[in-house]
Amino acid sequence: MAEATAEQLADTTINDAGIVPKAEFSDRVPINSIISRADGGSGLAGRKARVGGWVKTGRKADKDAFAFLELNDGSCPGNLQVIVEAGLVAGDLSQVVPTGTCVVVDGELKLPPEGAKQKVEVRAEKVVHVGPVDPAKYPLPKMRLTLEFLRDFVHLRSRTNTISSVARIRNALAYATHTFFQKHGFLYVHTPIITTSDCEGAGEMFQVTTLLSEAERLEKELVENPPPTEADVEAARAVVKEKGEIVSQLKSAKASKQEIGAAVDELKKSKDTLSKLEERSKLKPGIPKKDDGKVDYAKDFFARQAFLTVSGQLQVESYACALSSVYTFGPTFRAENSHTSRHLAEFWMVEPEIAFAELKDDMNCAEAYVKFLCQWLLDNCLEDMKFMADKFDKGCIDRLKMVASTPFVRVSYTEAVEILEEAVKNGKKFDNEVKWGIDLASEHERYITEVKFQKPVIVYNYPKEIKAFYMRLNDDSKTVAAMDVLVPKVGELIGGSQREERYDVIVQRIEEMGLPLEPYDWYLDLRRYGTVKHSGFGLGFERMILFATGLENIRDVIPFPRYPGRADL
Amino acid sequence: MAEATAEQLADTTINDAGIVPKAEFSDRVPINSIISRADGGSGLAGRKARVGGWVKTGRKADKDAFAFLELNDGSCPGNLQVIVEAGLVAGDLSQVVPTGTCVVVDGELKLPPEGAKQKVEVRAEKVVHVGPVDPAKYPLPKMRLTLEFLRDFVHLRSRTNTISSVARIRNALAYATHTFFQKHGFLYVHTPIITTSDCEGAGEMFQVTTLLSEAERLEKELVENPPPTEADVEAARAVVKEKGEIVSQLKSAKASKQEIGAAVDELKKSKDTLSKLEERSKLKPGIPKKDDGKVDYAKDFFARQAFLTVSGQLQVESYACALSSVYTFGPTFRAENSHTSRHLAEFWMVEPEIAFAELKDDMNCAEAYVKFLCQWLLDNCLEDMKFMADKFDKGCIDRLKMVASTPFVRVSYTEAVEILEEAVKNGKKFDNEVKWGIDLASEHERYITEVKFQKPVIVYNYPKEIKAFYMRLNDDSKTVAAMDVLVPKVGELIGGSQREERYDVIVQRIEEMGLPLEPYDWYLDLRRYGTVKHSGFGLGFERMILFATGLENIRDVIPFPRYPGRADL
Repeated sequence: MAEATAEQLADTTINDAGIVPKAEFSDRVPINSIISRADGGSGLAGRKARVGGWVKTGRKADKDAFAFLELNDGSCPGNLQVIVEAGLVAGDLSQVVPTGTCVVVDGELKLPPEGAKQKVEVRAEKVVHVGPVDPAKYPLPKMRLTLEFLRDFVHLRSRTNTISSVARIRNALAYATHTFFQKHGFLYVHTPIITTSDCEGAGEMFQVTTLLSEAERLEKELVENPPPTEADVEAARAVVKEKGEIVSQLKSAKASKQEIGAAVDELKKSKDTLSKLEERSKLKPGIPKKDDGKVDYAKDFFARQAFLTVSGQLQVESYACALSSVYTFGPTFRAENSHTSRHLAEFWMVEPEIAFAELKDDMNCAEAYVKFLCQWLLDNCLEDMKFMADKFDKGCIDRLKMVASTPFVRVSYTEAVEILEEAVKNGKKFDNEVKWGIDLASEHERYITEVKFQKPVIVYNYPKEIKAFYMRLNDDSKTVAAMDVLVPKVGELIGGSQREERYDVIVQRIEEMGLPLEPYDWYLDLRRYGTVKHSGFGLGFERMILFATGLENIRDVIPFPRYPGRADL
Repeated sequence: MAEATAEQLADTTINDAGIVPKAEFSDRVPINSIISRADGGSGLAGRKARVGGWVKTGRKADKDAFAFLELNDGSCPGNLQVIVEAGLVAGDLSQVVPTGTCVVVDGELKLPPEGAKQKVEVRAEKVVHVGPVDPAKYPLPKMRLTLEFLRDFVHLRSRTNTISSVARIRNALAYATHTFFQKHGFLYVHTPIITTSDCEGAGEMFQVTTLLSEAERLEKELVENPPPTEADVEAARAVVKEKGEIVSQLKSAKASKQEIGAAVDELKKSKDTLSKLEERSKLKPGIPKKDDGKVDYAKDFFARQAFLTVSGQLQVESYACALSSVYTFGPTFRAENSHTSRHLAEFWMVEPEIAFAELKDDMNCAEAYVKFLCQWLLDNCLEDMKFMADKFDKGCIDRLKMVASTPFVRVSYTEAVEILEEAVKNGKKFDNEVKWGIDLASEHERYITEVKFQKPVIVYNYPKEIKAFYMRLNDDSKTVAAMDVLVPKVGELIGGSQREERYDVIVQRIEEMGLPLEPYDWYLDLRRYGTVKHSGFGLGFERMILFATGLENIRDVIPFPRYPGRADL
C-alpha cells in the first residue's frame, strides 16, 4: 500500500546520489513517498526528485515571476507544493496554474520558509511535461462541487479529494478482505457472474443474451440480402428435378461412368443450392419463438435463459463442501427499480463459506472480519479517514476504533423483539409494528445497535418464515440458525447462516416455500453425497464503505455506479 | 495461505493441553496443519485432535474390525490416514469407507508402523459425524475420471485431486496478484461489469437487459387481465362527457359550492379512469419498438443498450489519470461462438494502468509481475505444483523456476519478423505466411519463445494497422508502442501498450480506423484536460493458470466455465 511504501522509505536510507528513489515502473517519485514520511519530507531537503501530478491550486506570484502549484498524484490525500520560475515554461506561467493541469518537474526538495504549513517543497529546475487545461471548459473547476454534481462526471471525479479518498479506502478494504481470509486459510473462489441458477426469482435478475443483437444482425442482413421468394425456391426445385432426370436418362442409356459422374455432381450442386434457399426462406426476423409463442432460448448463446448472479453463495457452497474454507468476492446484480441512496444495480459482495462450522463459528468469523477491516483502515488509511472525519462525518474514526475493540453483543431474535417491545412500552415510536415474526426494519436494527447497545450487535435465530430455505432449521422447528450483524450508521452490514445440511429437512423446506425442486438438484447433491455442516455469510462491500466513511449515498462509494436509467461508461 | 499456517504451526509450540490448535472458525484441525509441517506431523504424535474431511480411499481390514480411511479436507493435496474401530460407528463400517463420505472424528495422533508412507496417522476415539454416500449413485467413483467427464459435474469436481489443486493454485495466483500490485503502490479499482462503452463492437458482446423478462411479465399479465377494448374506452369517454355536462349544468344553474365540488370530484374520477384505460389499451405485448421498428432501448433498465464488459482498460485509465498507479482484476466477457480449448465466454483479467509511465516501464512492470507470480507458486504451492508435474506436465516446475529467474528477452516486432523469416529460410514450415505487417500467429509466437529463445520474450513496436486506436503512435508513424509478453507453453500471456496521450493524434487514429468519435468523448476528455503519458497491460488470468499447471483446456482452470451452450449452475 501507499502508506507502507512511505514508511519503508522513511526507515531506509536515501540513495547516495542524493536522489529520492523513484517508483519502480515510472520515472517519477510518488508524492506520498515524500510528504507521508514521519518527518513530512523535511529529511529529504537538498535531494533531487522528479515529481508529477495534477494541479489542485495554482497561483502566480511576484509579478508573475513564479507559480506556486499544489500538486496531487493520488498516492495520498496531501499535496506537494511546487515552485516554478517563469523562465522554465515555454510561454506564460498561466499555462501551468489552472486546476486540473498535469505537471511533471525535475527539481530540488527544499525546506519551506518558517511558518509554512508544508514540511518540504520542490523548487523546479526543469518542467518536463505540461498537460494543459482550458479553465473555461474544464468540468471540475476549483470550487466545492456537490457529490451529486460529480456523478455526471464519473470519468473525472476521481480527481477530487473526496472520490480519491474513497478510492483509497475502498482499495484498502479490498486488500484487507483478501489478507484476512488468506491468513485464516480460506481459498478465494471465483463464482460465476453469468448464472442459470435462478435462486431468487427471475423478476429481479438481469438477463444475459445474444438474442437481441442476433435479431438485429439478421434483420439488417435480410434487408441487404432479402430471403428467396417461394418462386425462387420452386425454380430451384425444378432445377433439381431436371438434373435428376438427366442422371436417370444417362443411366438408362448406359452412358460412360464419366458422363454419369458429371451429371451426378451437377445434381448434388443443385440440391445444395435448393437446401440453402430453403434454409434462408425459413429465416424470420425478430426474436426466435417456439410454437407456443414463447421465446426460444434454445437459440440463445448458452442454449437456455441466463442471468447475472445475485449471489455466489450456492455455488461457493459446492467448493466449501470439498475445500472446507472458501470465500468469493465479486460483483453481484439486482434489476430492482429502486432509486434510493442504498441500492445499486451492480455492487460487490464478500461471501465466505466454512465447512465443519456452526452458527457460532460463523458469528466469530464475521466479528473477527469486521474488526480486522476497521483496524486495517486505522493502520493504513488514517490520512484519508481524517479527511472523511473533517468533511463528512466527525465520528467516523471513533466508530472504527470502537468496532475494532468492542466485543459484539449477541442477542437472539426473540430477545431483540423483546427489547423493541420494551422500547415501545417506554414511548419509542416506530413506523413498523413490532411483534415476534416480523422482519426487523432498518429503524429497528438501528435502534438496537445505535440506541440500546451503542455498539455492534449480532442478532441470531430468526423465524423461519422470513428467511431463506437453505438456513438450518433449529430444534424448536420455529427458528433457523441465521444471523445478522448490525452496526451503528448503516444497520445491517452482514447476513449469514448455518446451512441446512440434512437432505430430508432441506427438501421439505424447499417444498414448504413453494419452490420447485429441479433447479436445486445439484445443490441437493451436496447433501446427498458426503454432507457436512457448514456456515457462511455475505457482506455488502459498498455498505462497509458507507459505514467506514460516513458518506450517505452508495453511488459515491463505487467507481462506476449503475442504477435505473444510468450506466455511464 | 494454507501453507503459511502450517509453517507457522511448525514453528510455534503446541498448546499445553496436548491438543493440536484448531482452526479459528471451526472446531476441527485443518489437515495441512498436521501433515504439511516440516516433520510431516510426526512431532504431533500423542496429541489429540478433531479432524474432518472426505474419504478419498477407504478399506476395511482385520475381518472388518477396522477401517482405514484416507481423508482429504482440501487444505492441501495430501491425505490424512484415519483408523476407525468397528465399535465407533453405529451400524457397519461399510458406512464410512465409500469414496466421498464425509467423516469427522476425535482422535489421537500416532506414529504409524515402520515403513508406512505417512509420518503420522489418527486413531479415532469418537466418530463425531458421518455424511454418507451411496456408492451405487455417487457420480465420482474412485477411479481415474477424465477432465472432460468432470465438466459435467462442476458442483462436485472440486473434490477431485486435480480440480482441488487447480483451485489452490488459482487462489495463490489471485492473492499474489493483489500482493504484487499493493506492494508497488497500485490501487485496486473495480471497473464496471455492465457497460455502455462499446469499445470493441457489439457483435462479440453479451447484452444485459430486462426487456425480455418485462415482455414476458406483460404478456402474462395481459392474458390474466386483458386490455380494454375500444368499446370500453368509448364508454369511459362518454362517462367523462356526461360528468362534464353535469358540472356545466350545475355551474350555469348557480348550484351550491358543495354540489359543484362533488360533481367536479366525480368528473375527476371519471377522467382518471379514462386515462388509465387509455394507457392500458396502448399496451402491446412483445419487446417495445420505436416507430422505425427498432428496439426501443429507452424502455430498458438503463434507458439505453447495455453490455457485459470486454475489458476494464478504458475505464481504469480514467482512474490512472488521477491516482497514477491502479489496476483492475475482474471478470470479462466475450460472446464469441468459439468451441476451442483456449476460449471462454466469461474469464478473468488483470489490468494495471500506470500514469507517468512509458512502454519501457510497462514492460518492466509486466516482467516483474510474471516473475513474482512464478516465484510465489514455488514458495507457496509447491505440493500442488508437484502434483501437476507428476500427473500432467513434467516440466511445469522447471518452467516456473526458469521464468522467475531469467531476464525476459526484448525484441522489436521488426526483429521478430526477421527471426521468423530466417527460420523459414532454414526450412521451418508455418501455416501462416510470415512478412512484415502480419499479426503474429500463435505458431509464430511459440516458435520465438519456445524454439528460438527458449525463454520469455517481449515483442514490442507493432505495426499500427493491427493494433488498437488507443496505442501510442511511434515517431516512425508506422508502428505503435505496443508490447506482448510471450512465454513457453501458452504463447501470448500479456498484451499491453503505452496509451496515446496526444489529443490530436488519438482523434486522427479513431477516424483512421473508421470508428465514431461520440462514444469516446469521455475518453478524449482524459486527453483534453491534464493529459499525461500512461501505459498498461492485460493478463488473461486463466492463461496464466494454464501456463503454470500445464493443463490443456481452459475449461478446467476456472471453477464454473461458460462457453457456447453451457453455463451450468
